[in-house]
Amino acid sequence: MDVYSAQITNLVEQLSHLPGIGAKSAQRLAFHILNMSEEQVAGLSGAMMAAKKNVRYCKECCTYTDGEICPICANPKRNHKVIMVVENTRDLAAYEKTGKYDGVYHVLHGAISPMAGVGPNDIRLSELMVRLQQDVEEVIVATNKNLEGDTTATYISKLVKPLGIKVSRIASGVPAGGDLEYIDEVTLYRALEGRRDM
Amino acid sequence: MDVYSAQITNLVEQLSHLPGIGAKSAQRLAFHILNMSEEQVAGLSGAMMAAKKNVRYCKECCTYTDGEICPICANPKRNHKVIMVVENTRDLAAYEKTGKYDGVYHVLHGAISPMAGVGPNDIRLSELMVRLQQDVEEVIVATNKNLEGDTTATYISKLVKPLGIKVSRIASGVPAGGDLEYIDEVTLYRALEGRRDM
Repeated sequence: MDVYSAQITNLVEQLSHLPGIGAKSAQRLAFHILNMSEEQVAGLSGAMMAAKKNVRYCKECCTYTDGEICPICANPKRNHKVIMVVENTRDLAAYEKTGKYDGVYHVLHGAISPMAGVGPNDIRLSELMVRLQQDVEEVIVATNKNLEGDTTATYISKLVKPLGIKVSRIASGVPAGGDLEYIDEVTLYRALEGRRDM
Repeated sequence: MDVYSAQITNLVEQLSHLPGIGAKSAQRLAFHILNMSEEQVAGLSGAMMAAKKNVRYCKECCTYTDGEICPICANPKRNHKVIMVVENTRDLAAYEKTGKYDGVYHVLHGAISPMAGVGPNDIRLSELMVRLQQDVEEVIVATNKNLEGDTTATYISKLVKPLGIKVSRIASGVPAGGDLEYIDEVTLYRALEGRRDM
């Protein structure tokens, strides 16, 4: 039953395709948008179109950027001999927020997942291999700590090691502020295995 | 720290102004939009602009519509002598989904709330009073079952009763503090059936 007029129904429908937005949230968003000023709607709508039109992959690290090369790859102060491999741009942003990493990145845009039909050729691995022909000292694999991330990490390790380049992976363990009794067994075991001298 | 390029940052910023969308969700949505096809982005963006431009209040019941009169008010099969007063268009949609109501609606676009500085003149009450000059037999008040909804219901009752028109309110089948749009159809139907004179 179509209780809204066609244009509202269309807007609700379009919004409900976005991830994490169900039918109810889409309705709520649609009516919020109807209550916004015309300039605000134009701003939101324009930002989408502009981003979609101008944002592309960085020619070096494959992150999203609106230039040829992203600001991190273009920065001569960063250590271009250390490359951290992440699954997506949000993970890159998470590490940038630590302010403790001065190397560069490589964004795979995915992880190997036989279950989901994602193979090595479906993520940005060949672009990584091209970069490794330059002077690179270390590849830090920072894929997620799950089945897909582990598979991807192992795959990368097997590709990179024969080139004589050091490959490391970010540590697995108890998160900062974590309460031991609430941490799962696998994490506790990994934290024990990865213990370091004090 | 600006880890994304300007146009992504702008898109994330615009999205995070939407209700229920925090910084993380806005990032997630932004990257989803970047991964959509250009046609899909144009569709979403166009739907917003079109809805904002063309959707207005129905001249009769004040709901959102893209014509002069909404489909419900224009339908001669509906009983125009019974008017259900709701707070917003989502509540109207919720009652329409029951399929058990054949009267028409009046959408207030809010509820009286002294705390939030919303008075009787800030909601569509005068438009309701104009409609009551025609041949109306009953006004069913279906505002939310909370402080604002109760206040609004009492106010409407005091306005309408002197006109010799029956005023009723949907029954307390709707739980206290409940928001109409989230209630199941059966409860809504029972609440309608059990309405009592005010």
